[in-house]
Amino acid sequence: MDPPFTRLVADLPATVPFVGPEALERRTGRPFQLRLGANESLFGPSPHAAEAMRAAVEHVALYGDPENAALRSELARAHGVALENVMVASGIDDLLGLAVRAFLEPGVAAVTSLGAYPTFNYHVDGYGGHLERVSYRQDRNDLEALAAAAHRVQARLVYLANPDNPTGTWQSARDLRTFVDRLPSDCLVLLDEAYVDFAPPDAIPAIDATDPRVLHLRTFSKAHGMAGARIGYAIGPAPTIAAFDKIRLHYGVNSIAQEGALASLADPAHIQRVVAAVAEGRREYEELARSLGLSTLPSAANFVAIDVGEAAQARALLTSLEEHGVFVRMPNAPPLDRCIRVTVAPPTQRSAFAAILRAIWPTVLSRQYPEV
Amino acid sequence: MDPPFTRLVADLPATVPFVGPEALERRTGRPFQLRLGANESLFGPSPHAAEAMRAAVEHVALYGDPENAALRSELARAHGVALENVMVASGIDDLLGLAVRAFLEPGVAAVTSLGAYPTFNYHVDGYGGHLERVSYRQDRNDLEALAAAAHRVQARLVYLANPDNPTGTWQSARDLRTFVDRLPSDCLVLLDEAYVDFAPPDAIPAIDATDPRVLHLRTFSKAHGMAGARIGYAIGPAPTIAAFDKIRLHYGVNSIAQEGALASLADPAHIQRVVAAVAEGRREYEELARSLGLSTLPSAANFVAIDVGEAAQARALLTSLEEHGVFVRMPNAPPLDRCIRVTVAPPTQRSAFAAILRAIWPTVLSRQYPEV
Repeated sequence: MDPPFTRLVADLPATVPFVGPEALERRTGRPFQLRLGANESLFGPSPHAAEAMRAAVEHVALYGDPENAALRSELARAHGVALENVMVASGIDDLLGLAVRAFLEPGVAAVTSLGAYPTFNYHVDGYGGHLERVSYRQDRNDLEALAAAAHRVQARLVYLANPDNPTGTWQSARDLRTFVDRLPSDCLVLLDEAYVDFAPPDAIPAIDATDPRVLHLRTFSKAHGMAGARIGYAIGPAPTIAAFDKIRLHYGVNSIAQEGALASLADPAHIQRVVAAVAEGRREYEELARSLGLSTLPSAANFVAIDVGEAAQARALLTSLEEHGVFVRMPNAPPLDRCIRVTVAPPTQRSAFAAILRAIWPTVLSRQYPEV
Repeated sequence: MDPPFTRLVADLPATVPFVGPEALERRTGRPFQLRLGANESLFGPSPHAAEAMRAAVEHVALYGDPENAALRSELARAHGVALENVMVASGIDDLLGLAVRAFLEPGVAAVTSLGAYPTFNYHVDGYGGHLERVSYRQDRNDLEALAAAAHRVQARLVYLANPDNPTGTWQSARDLRTFVDRLPSDCLVLLDEAYVDFAPPDAIPAIDATDPRVLHLRTFSKAHGMAGARIGYAIGPAPTIAAFDKIRLHYGVNSIAQEGALASLADPAHIQRVVAAVAEGRREYEELARSLGLSTLPSAANFVAIDVGEAAQARALLTSLEEHGVFVRMPNAPPLDRCIRVTVAPPTQRSAFAAILRAIWPTVLSRQYPEV
């Protein structure tokens, strides 16, 4: 008899949160010319961060500090919290896994929006939780419906991205506060702030690390331009951070990433430049869409969701873009699956994307699509 | 009411597998001058790997391939197995966690040696498994007793490091085969081969990826000199690799690490040089110990366990070394805790260690120690 898997793992479907662009390239045999599907910062990391990472290779034979003390100290200082309120991990994905493992007994419910970040769902499934999905409303997370669902299913976790992915829309800090107050008192909000650097000030809730109901999740993968480094952090109540410390992979974070993150924090001017350049690029995408008779969703992130009108048409556009060497993604559930999501790139790549989109859109538009 | 943790996580003690040297430095306020406690390769990575990592910073804004296809292909080729038999992860620690999660229902048993790698124990505790510890016998893993324990407690997992850590001793491939045959048929051996590059050929079992009873765990942290990069891999039966794929962190491995690992695999001459240099250093440590009237455990790894005779004396020696700026570790359980474990360093650092050891040993030896 072969060693048997746990019941939970045996019953899981063979699935991945995302099929990477490399896998798509291997399938088709065609490399992508434009990589606009993963909201990577094509403006790159801070030159200081890049230099720090190159220099850190000198010490790669040594394990990194498992307590990530230097980086956590700097993050604590920057956010005005204590060291015990900060945890560094291998990106927000890692932190979502820890949160699900720490809070979700098998069968217990978590709430998210239908079509939101798949990796949270992956972890909930992976630990045997029940996932309750709430439809977007007018292309925004429906805070009232999310809170109602949390009460209905007695959720322990609610996932919410602000600014949101894949729409780019956002909620005000005030509305978020009201939302948290409406939730069951034993429910934790996993507030995914991956795109927070791109958000308007009034969409950034103040961090209160004494509030046991909110865990802020941040990353160096977006505005900081370090997606490949796999480093992110959580800020939240000390007991939650301490619980994660009992189950996390203590030596999980690459030492080069730690050095890069520290250097990136010390170069806020780079982030400001990226944010400004992204804002300009968003406007350009909006104009491009409008010029083709399409609308866009409002975005406070480094991507724009272009409203193609219908799911079949969006799917056809995505396929045609792929055939023309452009990697983009689309939301995986209605009503958002009428959109494609395009990462804001620097001007040259935007022009190349615009040329391809202008060339293929009439053909995509002119075809007949069966109802989905 | 605060959001409650799962029962399992709430009941876990606040513990870490290892306190890092950085944490010890922060406690004492004294930086270590010699870092000989974590079996890092102080001979460094391949210059080609270092160059590949520096070059990879150029693309750090992009997520790495979540399927790690390039590296897995090369590993599959090198080990004569199929792609479906290889998984890349953030070091062996990560893979041990996946194995425990995939195979160990809460309350089900795993077997290990008393004083073996603490991170395996950490994961078993973390997922609520029962840990059965078997004493070392003559400073080697007691294969008969491990197999007997596996039957007695109906273990699903057995952890075994070969060459062993923290002793450095090893088993022959033939004895390992007999051991696997003696285990319950539904029991998986997690064969930690972190130090395999340093082992004599007859201690390296052939890899048979069709054997459902053995998972080989390897790392770039030791002979490859890339501990800070956090990258390792498993080779084993396809169903086990597929099960891990359902629960692993898909974007967990740093892209710079992936490039470094690929370049390191392409430079076997570097590994040969490191292995030869380590063998020379082991002999020097053995002579050093002998000159002080101490013996050493036979080692096929990049460290030597020096037998200090008694636990209290070993503890006193470790403390005195720390006070003199030397970071070493000692096994945490009898009978091994009469030893200190010293990483083999290049000649200059070995000389510095020898000078300090010669200077402090008479004092440590002359003191009286209470029985422990």
